[in-house]
Amino acid sequence: MYEKYWKQMGDKATIVIPGWQSMSYFSDVKNLCWFLEPEFAKQIVRVHKVVGNALTEGRHIVVGTGSSQLFSAALYALAPQDASNPISVVSAAPYYSCYPLMTDSIKSGLHKWAGDAKVFNKDEPYIELVTSPNNPDGFIRHSMVNRTGGILVHDLAYYWPQYTPISSPADNDLTLFTVSKITGHAGMRIGWALVKDVEVAKKMTKFIELNTIGVSKDSQIRAAKVLEVVSDSCEQAGGSEHVESFFHFSHALMTERWRMLREAVKRSGIFSLPEFSSAHCNFFDNKLGSQPAFAWLKCDGDDVDDCESFLRRHKILTRGGKHFGVSPKYVRISMMDREETYDLFIQRLSQIRS
Amino acid sequence: MYEKYWKQMGDKATIVIPGWQSMSYFSDVKNLCWFLEPEFAKQIVRVHKVVGNALTEGRHIVVGTGSSQLFSAALYALAPQDASNPISVVSAAPYYSCYPLMTDSIKSGLHKWAGDAKVFNKDEPYIELVTSPNNPDGFIRHSMVNRTGGILVHDLAYYWPQYTPISSPADNDLTLFTVSKITGHAGMRIGWALVKDVEVAKKMTKFIELNTIGVSKDSQIRAAKVLEVVSDSCEQAGGSEHVESFFHFSHALMTERWRMLREAVKRSGIFSLPEFSSAHCNFFDNKLGSQPAFAWLKCDGDDVDDCESFLRRHKILTRGGKHFGVSPKYVRISMMDREETYDLFIQRLSQIRS
Repeated sequence: MYEKYWKQMGDKATIVIPGWQSMSYFSDVKNLCWFLEPEFAKQIVRVHKVVGNALTEGRHIVVGTGSSQLFSAALYALAPQDASNPISVVSAAPYYSCYPLMTDSIKSGLHKWAGDAKVFNKDEPYIELVTSPNNPDGFIRHSMVNRTGGILVHDLAYYWPQYTPISSPADNDLTLFTVSKITGHAGMRIGWALVKDVEVAKKMTKFIELNTIGVSKDSQIRAAKVLEVVSDSCEQAGGSEHVESFFHFSHALMTERWRMLREAVKRSGIFSLPEFSSAHCNFFDNKLGSQPAFAWLKCDGDDVDDCESFLRRHKILTRGGKHFGVSPKYVRISMMDREETYDLFIQRLSQIRS
Repeated sequence: MYEKYWKQMGDKATIVIPGWQSMSYFSDVKNLCWFLEPEFAKQIVRVHKVVGNALTEGRHIVVGTGSSQLFSAALYALAPQDASNPISVVSAAPYYSCYPLMTDSIKSGLHKWAGDAKVFNKDEPYIELVTSPNNPDGFIRHSMVNRTGGILVHDLAYYWPQYTPISSPADNDLTLFTVSKITGHAGMRIGWALVKDVEVAKKMTKFIELNTIGVSKDSQIRAAKVLEVVSDSCEQAGGSEHVESFFHFSHALMTERWRMLREAVKRSGIFSLPEFSSAHCNFFDNKLGSQPAFAWLKCDGDDVDDCESFLRRHKILTRGGKHFGVSPKYVRISMMDREETYDLFIQRLSQIRS
């Protein structure tokens, strides 16, 4: 959906890599994360400073093949290596549908999925995943387990100004980000973690070493370039090179899509959407609402129990609530598809009547 | 070590990726491996045909973030999902030192490392890793477990003409390859598997989906380009564009390095190296010896038990035999370092006397 922006940027975001460049496994042997490209690290620090969404001082940066790999690396690093039982991994429902699958994919003896954080009450160590804004429902999240002492992993993939007001810079022990949700470049498979504890950062690096012996340099170089353009566009907005910042562009796009969606939902009379309260966004310096990357739609009527199947009959592909640990009356819909696809979705949704 | 070749190739191997290109997760939704770039798939088939080292007909191609990810994907796909015990994974010693670490990294309930294939005698299912030419010792390998019925994974990372005679096209159930060992582009983190069984290919794809939601498109595009240049150089060798093929260049380089090494080892009088018999290479149409990417060096003297420590005192960094499941009298030495580093190694080795 941000393709149009990147087309406008023309050569600014183009990379050229000659055949003889970046051939080695190593990017920076002096860095704890020896496969992290220095220019990419620099642009990560810069974009967080420009946007104000996360503190980078006193953090180690670990790069991953998307934030999924960093998720597995975090579990590996945080789970006790010598425990007799795997550590419980929880997240408040509705949670990202891949968490249970990724946690238990190869039946690890280190960690096991233990479901909804809101009902977790075992008296044992646990790891809690805090996704904020949350995938699938878009709400701002905090730890939900009803006691202290859990190990927290913050997944802030969507904590960017086009989706939610930036209220303060994140200051967590371990935070995950991914290029795909900022700039739209999912095909790069590049994410990063900001990690306070040096031993945790080392173990995450070790995991990625065993898993894939590092992370594509080509994509790191490209990610550095697009983040550079994003930061440039913020710092130079209104100038001759950048008429508007990337986030002005993407925020306006999301606003328009949510306007269309809320209108269609209202017309239908049988669906409902989450309502978000406004908050001050430090980046835009304005009071703004949330406009998440996913719509968390509910079929309100008594006659529809399975919203996913119901919408499929109307040629709308969604992901049903049970994947996210809740009722099948809910579905998750991507708000980030190509324009043609999104328009078609709105058109089809608008035609559904109770 | 192949950097010089790629510098000679100039713009031929350069890629240019505009900011708006390959943004999506998907590469080819009609393909079983939906994140495989079609152009990369095309160049894989082509290079195997040009070199004659593997059959691709009737195989599914699965791309991975290096062959390490494909190794884990293969174990995931081949291990029974509902067995009460993890399946044994074996390989004949000396074996690649990462196999045990990767197999047991997160204490999987699906598979466990069971050591040297030559002494494996449990009456239960097993997966055998066959690395040929072998890392670390360079010998051609076949299954070593003394019975039939095992599941075989062939790691043919080094089955290319610069390292070993190409005697026939590989025709296995599941074969792994990696760009890094052919062209030297380790930083790309790109490998591929040729898989006969469609269900196994599907499960491997599923693993990579859960692990990293696909593989860097940028690196696949770049890998396609360098493989294209390699195949072009073979087909057009002697022409105006390509004076010699990539494999003529790299074979000559390896020959020279092995000549230098054998000379230094002979002078020292305390080390020995494996001896390889010659064989007909279909690619060069000539009877040739092996010149592996690693030297498997043995300290022959009675006074040196730990060859790794002994060489470290002479400022030569190696990896000791115990990592590969054998005596510490052996060490593995990379033959693929930069020219300056390799020359320094030979110089230091030449000065060691019994």
